[in-house]
Order: sequence, then C-alpha cells, then structure tokens
Amino acid sequence: MQVLIIGAAGLIGRKLTSRLAAEGALGDQPIEGLTLADVVAPAIATELRGSAKALQLDLSDPETAAVLVANRPDVIFHLAAIVSGEAEADFDKGYRVNLDGTRLLLDAIRCEGKRRPYRPRLVFTSSIAVFGAPLPDRIGDDLATTPLTSYGTQKAIGELLVTDYSRRGFLDGIALRLPTICVRPGAPNKAASGFFSSILRDPLAGKEAVLPVSTDVRHWFASPRSAVRFLLQAGRMDLSALGWRRALNMPGLSATVGEEIEALQRVAGERAVALIRHEPDETISRIVRGWARGFDARRAQELGFVAEKSFDEIIRAHVEDELGGRIVI
Amino acid sequence: MQVLIIGAAGLIGRKLTSRLAAEGALGDQPIEGLTLADVVAPAIATELRGSAKALQLDLSDPETAAVLVANRPDVIFHLAAIVSGEAEADFDKGYRVNLDGTRLLLDAIRCEGKRRPYRPRLVFTSSIAVFGAPLPDRIGDDLATTPLTSYGTQKAIGELLVTDYSRRGFLDGIALRLPTICVRPGAPNKAASGFFSSILRDPLAGKEAVLPVSTDVRHWFASPRSAVRFLLQAGRMDLSALGWRRALNMPGLSATVGEEIEALQRVAGERAVALIRHEPDETISRIVRGWARGFDARRAQELGFVAEKSFDEIIRAHVEDELGGRIVI
Repeated sequence: MQVLIIGAAGLIGRKLTSRLAAEGALGDQPIEGLTLADVVAPAIATELRGSAKALQLDLSDPETAAVLVANRPDVIFHLAAIVSGEAEADFDKGYRVNLDGTRLLLDAIRCEGKRRPYRPRLVFTSSIAVFGAPLPDRIGDDLATTPLTSYGTQKAIGELLVTDYSRRGFLDGIALRLPTICVRPGAPNKAASGFFSSILRDPLAGKEAVLPVSTDVRHWFASPRSAVRFLLQAGRMDLSALGWRRALNMPGLSATVGEEIEALQRVAGERAVALIRHEPDETISRIVRGWARGFDARRAQELGFVAEKSFDEIIRAHVEDELGGRIVI
Repeated sequence: MQVLIIGAAGLIGRKLTSRLAAEGALGDQPIEGLTLADVVAPAIATELRGSAKALQLDLSDPETAAVLVANRPDVIFHLAAIVSGEAEADFDKGYRVNLDGTRLLLDAIRCEGKRRPYRPRLVFTSSIAVFGAPLPDRIGDDLATTPLTSYGTQKAIGELLVTDYSRRGFLDGIALRLPTICVRPGAPNKAASGFFSSILRDPLAGKEAVLPVSTDVRHWFASPRSAVRFLLQAGRMDLSALGWRRALNMPGLSATVGEEIEALQRVAGERAVALIRHEPDETISRIVRGWARGFDARRAQELGFVAEKSFDEIIRAHVEDELGGRIVI
C-alpha cells in the first residue's frame, strides 16, 4: 500500500510517520511506499531510507496536488494547515492554504479517478475550532458548526467538501475534529492555544512559562499519542457505518487549567508549578472564551476511538515520549 | 440607496424586483438605483426605466464580481444558484457557480473595501437542502448541517463564508435557509422538488400533473410571497442581534403531500384534484426521503419572520398573484 502524508513536517505528521515506519503497515496492509510532503522539507528517518520519499511543496500551488496523487496513494493523511492565529492574521494565506489547498487536493483525486478508477481513503484533520461560543458544556455529535475564526471556518468547509466528495464516490473520506493537542513538544506554533501546552512543557524542562488566562478556563484535550492513534484508526477502519456524516468529534479530556496545574503538581511537584507565571492577556482570554469546553463524543466512542482519562496520563505520555521518561526539575 | 440583485431573472429575483420597484424604498431608505444581474438578461419593468440597470453576466467568470460591486451597492441580494438537480448532474458547474461564484462576490466586496471603507448588507439565499436525513421531525436552530446533495453542500459552505466575511468586517451578511417555495409559477426548473408545486399549479390551470411520491411525504414550504418578505426584512433589519450566527432557518409550513391535495380540494374542488396522476418514481422518492420534514424556526420567529399557517393560504396567494384571482377549472 502507498501512503501519503501532507503536512508531514508538523508535530502530528512527524509522529504519524514514526508510527507508520515502526509498524511497517496500516492495519493488516503492509506499507510499500510512504510519501512525506510539506511546505518545509520533511526529514526521513534512517529506517525509512529506500521506502520513503520527501517532497517539499506548497499545497496551495495549483500544480502541487496532481504531483501528490500521481502515484495513486491508497491512503492520504491531509494534516497540512495554516494554524488559527496565523489564518486570523493573514486572511488570504489562510483561505489559500486551508480552503483552496484542500479543494485542489480533492479535485486532483477526482481527476485521477477520471483516468482510471481511483477512490483513496482520505483522512482530513479538522478541529474543534469549528465550534464557537455560545456553546453547551458538552457538545454532542449533531451540533451546528459555528466557527469564530477563519481557521475554524476553513476546517468546517473542508469537512463539507470531504463529505460531498465521498458521497459522490471520488474518495472515501473522514474528517477528524481533533481536540487541542497537549502537551505539544518543541517550539510553540502561532496557535492561540499554545499556553495550554507551554505551562506543562516548559516547567517540566525546568523553564518558566506564562499563563495568560485564569485557572477556571475549561477546554478539551488529547495527547499527541492519542491524535496519532485516531489517525491510524481512521486510515484503516471501514467508514460505511458513518453514512454521509464524515465529520467526527474525537474523544478527549475536558479539564480546567487549574486541573492541568494540579496534575503537573502530582507528576512533577511544587517546584514545577512555581515556574508558571500568571500574566493575564485580555486578547487571548477573549479568544479562549469562545472555545469548546467539552464534548459528548458518542459516535467516535462507539467506533472505538479512545482518549486519555486524566491530565496525569497526558503529562506522563509527554514525559515518556519527549523526555525519555525523565523530569529534570 | 443602491440595490443589487444577483439572480434577478429567477422566480424570486423577479418578484423581489417588482416589490422593490413598487415600494421605491427598502425600509425607510429610498432606492436611487437598482441593478439587476443574471446569466440571462433580466427584464426591466416600465416603471423602472431610468432607475434600473440590467446586466447579463456569469458570476463564475472571475471578472464579473468586480463589475457588480463597482458602484458600491448598499444592499446586495445574492439569489443566483445552479439548482439542486443540475448541481448534482453537473458537478463542475455546481461548484463553479454556487461555490466559486459566491466566493468571487465576497472577495470583490472585500477588495472594494480595501480601496475605501465599504461594508454592504449581503442577503444570501441558502436552503433547507443543507440538512439531510436522518433528521428529527422538527429541526431546531442548532442542528448540524448534513447535506446529501452537492447543492446543499455548496449552500452550507456559502453560509460559512458569509458568516466569516461578516465577522471579519468585510460585509454585513445574512444567509436565509428558505423553505421549498410553493407554489412556483411558470415552467418547472430542474429541482427535484418541482412536483410539490406542479401538483397544485397545473390542476389550478386545468392541466394534468404527475405526483411521483406517496401522499404521506412531509416537507417544509413557504409561498413566493413569504420568500420575498423574508428577503426584504433581511435587507433592512439590524443584524447585530444575530451575533456571528448568520445562517437562519426561515419559518414555513410543515405539511404532507396529502394535506397539499386536501387544500387544493377545498380551494379548487374535486375536479382539480382529479387532474393529479400518481406515477411513483423511485429516484425522486429516494431523494425526497432525505429531506427536512419540519422546523422549529424559533430564532427567525423571534426576529419577526412569519410564513403561511396553512396550505389554503399558500394556494390562495398563488391564485391572487399568478392567476388574477381566478381559477379556470
């Protein structure tokens, strides 16, 4: 089987690549070729030399999508996106990449299918940013999408397109509304949600972190591990049970910032917590007030998707996966 | 005030034009200029000579939208669309007109605003086709859009775009999810919903009509009169109460085909009913089974939108508006 990852150089893309490389298969299908595409050149791990190919290209370039589907990948993970903060700051860039780029990809798949029957699995990462306040405490599977950002709008449109192209038989798609990924390792990206990770990640590495919102802010989380597990399952599962409702709220953990910090205290002690400096930021607080606080992700749970049950678990996953099991503080 | 109607040659466009011409104002704002645009040349009524301008153009042509907004209309009614049946039959055409055309219009407004501040009212006609089965008997204001046609997908995307462009301050938009318009006068268009009108319209004119579905099919209706009233209200009302939820289910009448026929019997007698010939069509029946049966259009009602309360009223509106008050049968 041929697998294509678009957005392979990002956090989830890199972790997904590692998992696919380690397993050598998706479900019971051995992976013969893996194509890693991103706007920055994706790194190819040693174990993948020979079977993987890295492409540096821009999905919003009208020529790109045809190149990506030319070898007719069986499974396509479409993770590429301009994140929320940047899509809000640069209107044109957000629409060009997140909307036009996605549509170009879908149309390239459709055109490839006109030449010779082709109906790949497409796993599209959507986001809980398709929902904006006022929202219920627990969002059900049938709630209207009401984005309050251009990013959320573009993701909601992507879901509609993936569903319609699936219904028309051009591809077999699913859109996963990922929770906010926490703990994000490495340097922060431009997402307004960055502090949810940095207040754990930086103290765990002995560094100061800034908390821009109050501790009673509640939000919806899953670890990078869970996100990769969701993607792998979506890449191999039978989607017919979904009918033509191909956008799915993923399970996660509903927790307050205060609960995050309590878990940090339990896992890493009071010295870690002391590294968090509260510096209220009205802009970030206002954005975050519009976000989802929790979900009742029943459909996804019935399909076997599972996330963490506590922030302690989320922090321990980070310590194991990113810190070699050691907390320096 | 300058008013632009895109899709002015269609049923609702023509009726809206007549109403605006008759009133000479929208709310308390006198209309100084009226631009009628469509892919076929819109007719200009005698009373409008001098104040109205007709443009024959294709909204999906990249040059068109800039022409339409060049005189900076204060209110834009965007009614243009490839209807459901045709958008399903011609995938490219549907997306080109219904999605790209709408986006080109929104972007032309945005570009005009870069030159000099400009934030027109945009009234976009969406449709209950954004909802597809399985659906509750009464659809509330917060139900997820789950289209089962490309047309419904394109309308749902248009709603998201109108909302995001409004939120970003480029325009002040509203998307009205119109019920199925009944009774449609004149020749049938390519919509699969055509029979809901023809089984009334044709017998009222002494002609045979074909009913392709069973009489227990329930659906959601409003007269052309109501649709025009909705548009006029949306064109002049303060939209700030809507927040950034700019797509609105319009009120209507939930009725079965059997109830339609009973009303026809009451208004026009048994001879009219006898002209309906039942010829089941499995394709149309299957499409219609996916459609909405009723709504609880609370938000719109609270904003003062009102529709018919019985099919007798809907039929009488048709007899008054289209048949000069006379039933020939």
